[in-house]
Amino acid sequence: MPPVKKALFAAFLTCTLAAGAQEPTTRHFPLPDTVSPELRAMIAEKPPAYWNFHPKNEQEWKDWAARFASAADQYLPQLRGKMDVSVTSEKIGGVPVFTIAPKVVQNADASRILLHFHGGGYVLGAGESGTQEAILMAGLGGFRVISVDYRMPPDFPNPATLDDAMTVYRELLKTTPAEKIGVFGTSTGGGITLALTLRAKAEGLPLPAAIAPGTPWTDLTKTGDSYFVNEGVDNILFSYDGWLGDAARLYAGGKSLKDPLLSPVYGDVHGFPPTLLTSGTRDLFLSNTVRMHLKLREAGVSADLIVFEGMSHAQYYMSADAPEAQFHFSELARFFRKHLK
Amino acid sequence: MPPVKKALFAAFLTCTLAAGAQEPTTRHFPLPDTVSPELRAMIAEKPPAYWNFHPKNEQEWKDWAARFASAADQYLPQLRGKMDVSVTSEKIGGVPVFTIAPKVVQNADASRILLHFHGGGYVLGAGESGTQEAILMAGLGGFRVISVDYRMPPDFPNPATLDDAMTVYRELLKTTPAEKIGVFGTSTGGGITLALTLRAKAEGLPLPAAIAPGTPWTDLTKTGDSYFVNEGVDNILFSYDGWLGDAARLYAGGKSLKDPLLSPVYGDVHGFPPTLLTSGTRDLFLSNTVRMHLKLREAGVSADLIVFEGMSHAQYYMSADAPEAQFHFSELARFFRKHLK
Repeated sequence: MPPVKKALFAAFLTCTLAAGAQEPTTRHFPLPDTVSPELRAMIAEKPPAYWNFHPKNEQEWKDWAARFASAADQYLPQLRGKMDVSVTSEKIGGVPVFTIAPKVVQNADASRILLHFHGGGYVLGAGESGTQEAILMAGLGGFRVISVDYRMPPDFPNPATLDDAMTVYRELLKTTPAEKIGVFGTSTGGGITLALTLRAKAEGLPLPAAIAPGTPWTDLTKTGDSYFVNEGVDNILFSYDGWLGDAARLYAGGKSLKDPLLSPVYGDVHGFPPTLLTSGTRDLFLSNTVRMHLKLREAGVSADLIVFEGMSHAQYYMSADAPEAQFHFSELARFFRKHLK
Repeated sequence: MPPVKKALFAAFLTCTLAAGAQEPTTRHFPLPDTVSPELRAMIAEKPPAYWNFHPKNEQEWKDWAARFASAADQYLPQLRGKMDVSVTSEKIGGVPVFTIAPKVVQNADASRILLHFHGGGYVLGAGESGTQEAILMAGLGGFRVISVDYRMPPDFPNPATLDDAMTVYRELLKTTPAEKIGVFGTSTGGGITLALTLRAKAEGLPLPAAIAPGTPWTDLTKTGDSYFVNEGVDNILFSYDGWLGDAARLYAGGKSLKDPLLSPVYGDVHGFPPTLLTSGTRDLFLSNTVRMHLKLREAGVSADLIVFEGMSHAQYYMSADAPEAQFHFSELARFFRKHLK
């Protein structure tokens, strides 16, 4: 079991399924032999029972998030060691961030910086628990990464999350030209990456040189074909109709879920920087990803897409040993080196 | 009903389902509202009953193919008129081809040529019935296209098909430098596009400047996750276990189905030219496409991928009016203009 799922599962054990919760209906398929053994092991895992967890109140959200965050302590120290990176906790414009640096940074990358937003449905991933992907990017990709520990609901309703993202980006612009800044993140982090770019554009700020939203949550409503076709297939998210949809509504906080700063697939993406999107054939967010990709290309943006064979949501960063992870972070590194000055 | 499906369905009406044939099990999902009305209408159609047709002998294959070919007469004249292209039947190196030309060719494109291979599982699409995609490329993309009417089984067993492809390519090289030649095709035509490039490389010929295999049949065995996950979802091919798998074995003619010239995903693609691949989220060949894409990128090839929302196999060329078709052929045209001298 990959560390994130293990942590989530451990966190779940102390959770209670909401009364009357629908039982998951897994759709079974043969294990593909067209992926690495590491990915095959992930595909073989049962979907998490917590997919259908429906926190009944704010306290249940917070308790769940806290258990998730503390569970990360089990695997992060080992991962940091393995990736040979240093992690420094600091604040930028008052917003807590983790600066993650590889031991050796190539000369050309010394003045470049990647801004990272973690995933977790706008509720999970607080503190260091959100740094796993950033550690892999620093370790496997060789970049310095600033991972933003943004505020989340229920304590901090919308737009606190995106405000924090913008604060860090604006502060960064004071010392680093936009042409040397790349932005990336997975799932919710991919959504924030896109929303930040929309808002920077609306505010007239220089846009980052390149962005890499991985399987981004571009539509907070249950709109998009793979929400249905890959329901019960994706063994990470499983379905929109569990905690995920609840988290969408919690994050929106009464706003329209189709607001472009919440669901960037509805935004005007003309003028966006080069974009690299990633998904998997079993991913519940496959449509979230390809709809965004098509929209970017229709707007004339240089937008690339990678879809991993047999992969459910975000599994490319769930095992550092999987060749798919090595490939993914190499692709990201190559992409950012191509587009960052 | 799009013309190709209508033709195939008409052809099927005179066919008989093999005794004991398994009934199709359609997996039902809501119609996506994230696609054009034209594509939605295609998604709404029932899968073709002939998916499970198992020709019992060579004559049944030939009769089926002949009915398919003649059915194309119903819609091709109208399509040619609508696209305002001329179609000339000729021979290149003894191989019959159709040269399809738009009324107006931009100056920069005057010396460029696109080589096209039609789809149809190596059994369907003979004669003019295989020209639909080439007509759209000429009409919507503005390129001159040579569509090869290659020989097929059961009359002409392997390697007659690829021999014809190579003959035309070799002849073309005598008058047109490779840097001005692009190659494209869908499904089987995408497989031939890739196999031709592998064989040209093996023979030391200059490679085409760029290739665009659309949802290519890169693995003739039932290997790849979407053969299973999108079985009963894709309403064009529906399943490997009908006529499609039979056609794979018929084409291989006793050779290993994993021979790279039959299943190019097993080939050595180092040194391949820029490649644009296309598929859809419901496509039975989604894995055939993304596996090839990943393999190309791993080999350092500049390979792009487009995955259409909600789309089954090859529907991007089944209705000239669909915005998805307009988008697809614009993308192909842009791609070839970028990479052809």
